[in-house]
Amino acid sequence: MSKKNKLRIIPLGGLGEVGKNMMAYEFGGDIIVVDAGIMFPKNDMLGVDYIIPDYEYLKKRANRILGLFITHGHEDHIGAIQHFVEDFSVPIYATPLTRGLIEGKLARNNVQHKAQIKTIQAGGATKIGPFNIEYFHVNHSIPDCVGMAITTTAGLVIHMSDFKFDHTPVDGWPTDFAKLAEFSTRGVDLLLSDSTNAERPGWTPSEAIIGPAFDKVFAEAKGRVIVATFASLISRVQQVADAAAKQGRKLAIAGPSMVDNVKIARKLKYLDIPDDLIIPIDQALQMQDHKVAIMCTGSQGEPSSIVGRLSAGTNRQFNLKDNDTIVLSSHPIPGNEETINKTINRLLRRGVKVVDDSVAPIHVSGHAAQEEQKLLINLVRPKHFMPIHGEFKMLKRHAALAIQMGVEEKDTIVVENGQVVELVGNKIQLGERIPGDYIFVTGESIGDIDHDVMRERTQLARNGIMLIDIRLDKNTGRVLQDPEIITRGFVSPEDADALLPEVRKRVMNVVHDGKLDDEKDIVNAVKSYLHQETKRRPMVFVTLSKT
Amino acid sequence: MSKKNKLRIIPLGGLGEVGKNMMAYEFGGDIIVVDAGIMFPKNDMLGVDYIIPDYEYLKKRANRILGLFITHGHEDHIGAIQHFVEDFSVPIYATPLTRGLIEGKLARNNVQHKAQIKTIQAGGATKIGPFNIEYFHVNHSIPDCVGMAITTTAGLVIHMSDFKFDHTPVDGWPTDFAKLAEFSTRGVDLLLSDSTNAERPGWTPSEAIIGPAFDKVFAEAKGRVIVATFASLISRVQQVADAAAKQGRKLAIAGPSMVDNVKIARKLKYLDIPDDLIIPIDQALQMQDHKVAIMCTGSQGEPSSIVGRLSAGTNRQFNLKDNDTIVLSSHPIPGNEETINKTINRLLRRGVKVVDDSVAPIHVSGHAAQEEQKLLINLVRPKHFMPIHGEFKMLKRHAALAIQMGVEEKDTIVVENGQVVELVGNKIQLGERIPGDYIFVTGESIGDIDHDVMRERTQLARNGIMLIDIRLDKNTGRVLQDPEIITRGFVSPEDADALLPEVRKRVMNVVHDGKLDDEKDIVNAVKSYLHQETKRRPMVFVTLSKT
Repeated sequence: MSKKNKLRIIPLGGLGEVGKNMMAYEFGGDIIVVDAGIMFPKNDMLGVDYIIPDYEYLKKRANRILGLFITHGHEDHIGAIQHFVEDFSVPIYATPLTRGLIEGKLARNNVQHKAQIKTIQAGGATKIGPFNIEYFHVNHSIPDCVGMAITTTAGLVIHMSDFKFDHTPVDGWPTDFAKLAEFSTRGVDLLLSDSTNAERPGWTPSEAIIGPAFDKVFAEAKGRVIVATFASLISRVQQVADAAAKQGRKLAIAGPSMVDNVKIARKLKYLDIPDDLIIPIDQALQMQDHKVAIMCTGSQGEPSSIVGRLSAGTNRQFNLKDNDTIVLSSHPIPGNEETINKTINRLLRRGVKVVDDSVAPIHVSGHAAQEEQKLLINLVRPKHFMPIHGEFKMLKRHAALAIQMGVEEKDTIVVENGQVVELVGNKIQLGERIPGDYIFVTGESIGDIDHDVMRERTQLARNGIMLIDIRLDKNTGRVLQDPEIITRGFVSPEDADALLPEVRKRVMNVVHDGKLDDEKDIVNAVKSYLHQETKRRPMVFVTLSKT
Repeated sequence: MSKKNKLRIIPLGGLGEVGKNMMAYEFGGDIIVVDAGIMFPKNDMLGVDYIIPDYEYLKKRANRILGLFITHGHEDHIGAIQHFVEDFSVPIYATPLTRGLIEGKLARNNVQHKAQIKTIQAGGATKIGPFNIEYFHVNHSIPDCVGMAITTTAGLVIHMSDFKFDHTPVDGWPTDFAKLAEFSTRGVDLLLSDSTNAERPGWTPSEAIIGPAFDKVFAEAKGRVIVATFASLISRVQQVADAAAKQGRKLAIAGPSMVDNVKIARKLKYLDIPDDLIIPIDQALQMQDHKVAIMCTGSQGEPSSIVGRLSAGTNRQFNLKDNDTIVLSSHPIPGNEETINKTINRLLRRGVKVVDDSVAPIHVSGHAAQEEQKLLINLVRPKHFMPIHGEFKMLKRHAALAIQMGVEEKDTIVVENGQVVELVGNKIQLGERIPGDYIFVTGESIGDIDHDVMRERTQLARNGIMLIDIRLDKNTGRVLQDPEIITRGFVSPEDADALLPEVRKRVMNVVHDGKLDDEKDIVNAVKSYLHQETKRRPMVFVTLSKT
């Protein structure tokens, strides 16, 4: 088979959701990239702010990259662009709202001059190198979201990023069924589809069910209503604004990222909010409580968010009042349950009312559930199927669905990030594995924390440390004074004190055995004593000096 | 009001589920204790094995404690008895199965001689001091579970520990509706009720739905079926045994705690499993795969459990085979989702089939949902209501349910552990707060890790450490050689190397300013440089010696 007819599909990133944050398509040496997002750290990724995909593979081929194509404006799809533009100067293709959000983000990071962005439209197409990329509208929880049909001489591939089928979306613009059906008449060689909700039976409810729920919450609230959601959940802002208008409340937006996003979305007419409905937060804080609604971040209980700070009583701009109603308009991201519960408990202890999605339908998922996933497969009728956007177990479930629908098992392929897939000669097959991993970002440093550092952190966190400073007489080799011993994160000071006399004795024993120069022997003697006494293994460090 | 008519209700433990692990009732100086269980650590409790309630309040009144009364044999209700018997020599009251499980547990910890256990029966009662305690049968996910009706001259209190209303439980013995109704005719002054599922609408499904689901899984499995659940989920063992028998498979139990529990439950006739159905695990491993079922622990993905080890390829006794089916027969405990998902992904990567409760109804909750909670309130018609067993947010929801049902708001009381509640003169009121907290258990040490130690661990884990060892000339005060610098958990070795020259320079600057004796100044100078460069704050330690 000639190289000319081989399309290589390359999901990038560590063992996260496959192809969620970044995906590359390579054909005859030319490469296009779809999305450049970030991932949020898991609970065992200690001290990490966020994660970007390792795109070393792309960096080595920087001159063959034709463009970056963005499906929509959420952080997990655009959050890494600020890093991407430092490494590649290629055009970025995005719909108007997505473009606005990217520009805002780049400006906040002072790298706007490094990006050349081109506006695309659902229904339009871009021909670039061997690729023809057609954009079609899909529903999600942010407006102006597109799927992509990528045609090369290897065939037609549908890249279905985050989507749902919502017949009554907030912006009145449903997923483009006709276009999907048209692709099927042309013949779809490979469908890649969003597996986020592959374990959820049925059909994800429409955004339309949220309106009445908000109306009720707003009507019943005696004081202020504070609605927390993701800063980029633009559709939700429209719904909250509608409810506020209906119930005679003004709306204030708190928090710089949400303020920015709302400003951009209003300017681009993706939000329809009258000027006199929105007021600055300072003004809202002066008004009667039952005339006010506030939107902010923190629906996942993040301690540094406004809701997190309100729950801890450490928010600077304003505090909770007794008859506030806090609405957490999102569903826990797996792994965040504990943090969210802790935050809700704290809010309730402060006497406010809390409404989450277990109390009222103030949130719906932005992702297709099983019946929608099946509908997509039936609309598109792909020859091959590759589930993306999900953990391995969700991909497996999604592949099983496709097989139920008549796709042959040999025509489905389930891989993880870093595993190249090839579409060639009307077949789908595994390519090579490329180094694909996470890059951890913390503070201002990118990638200087690796898995070894993380392992050390875990070890520090599980058992703490003991530092022993020993002074020897340089002539006699005898210990000059009692070794100084410090512990952190090991046991309480009183319990440490109880252990120290014997630790000192063990140190002396090793030193007096004449092994005064070998710090390792001292470390081992102390470790073995501590384990014997406490069944724990703190890191032990010894400094030896001779005077 | 005389002290004689005051019943004090004391939920013990930290900010966990209220009264779940231990609760005390105090009347005129006499005390009875209900349950003595453990809690499992949250994700931010680093390096902790398990948690017991702080029962210092009881220790100070050890001579007034009349007995420990156990509702059922799950770890969160009996797991701390091994510690309790070290501090109190009082009789322990338990139903036959619960007693058997306690005895097994105490024997494994070599403290069986310290316990005097008395067998109680549902339908029976114990009169002790000012208390009359009546036991009545309730359904949960383990047989032989009781609720308690505690009568004093202060009134009748119903202590409803973990329960559900199952009309078709595995052991055919439903919750004692008649007894609950009888209490209501007597007049119930206070109902304490299980709030675990207060956020779940509807009615928890019966255990009966699990049987057919297991039958299907067993019938479809081409190779071995490995079912993971909690070691103490005795009802589930019966259901797996029934499915194995029906589908012509032998059943082997793996793991010492489950083997023990099954042995005890069979001996006491709480499990009805024919002798020839159960085989030793060694024998099972020699048989044809489709003739074998194995039960073991690890349904929460715990890395040290059998399923955890199988997923990692580190189980000693046996390994996974390609056509194995792994059934995870439990629902994720909040906070465990990430670990479970990771384990499932690993299992799937090894090519086995995984069935969890999103695939088939192979698990039901053991706790009452909202409709059952309402039924209980209607059956018992309490004057006062106190939700227990749940986080604050669940208690609030449960209290709201009771108010919906007609209990007056002033007659409901929502508290957290350590807050005494008093029932006196037909009123319910807050008593004092007592020191009530967690005690962390790790390895062999109990309570020598406190919240300060935990904070240090968090700090170590977020940013790592830097150790700087500086040698000075004792006459000139000048630095003798380049300071030795070690980092752990901070940045990768290469990135650390890049920072070290400047760190050394900053150290020299401080020393040459003549502040050679003040380690604090060196620490501060280094910290401020590291923060400036990396926006992170590792713990910095300096040892200074003069030669």
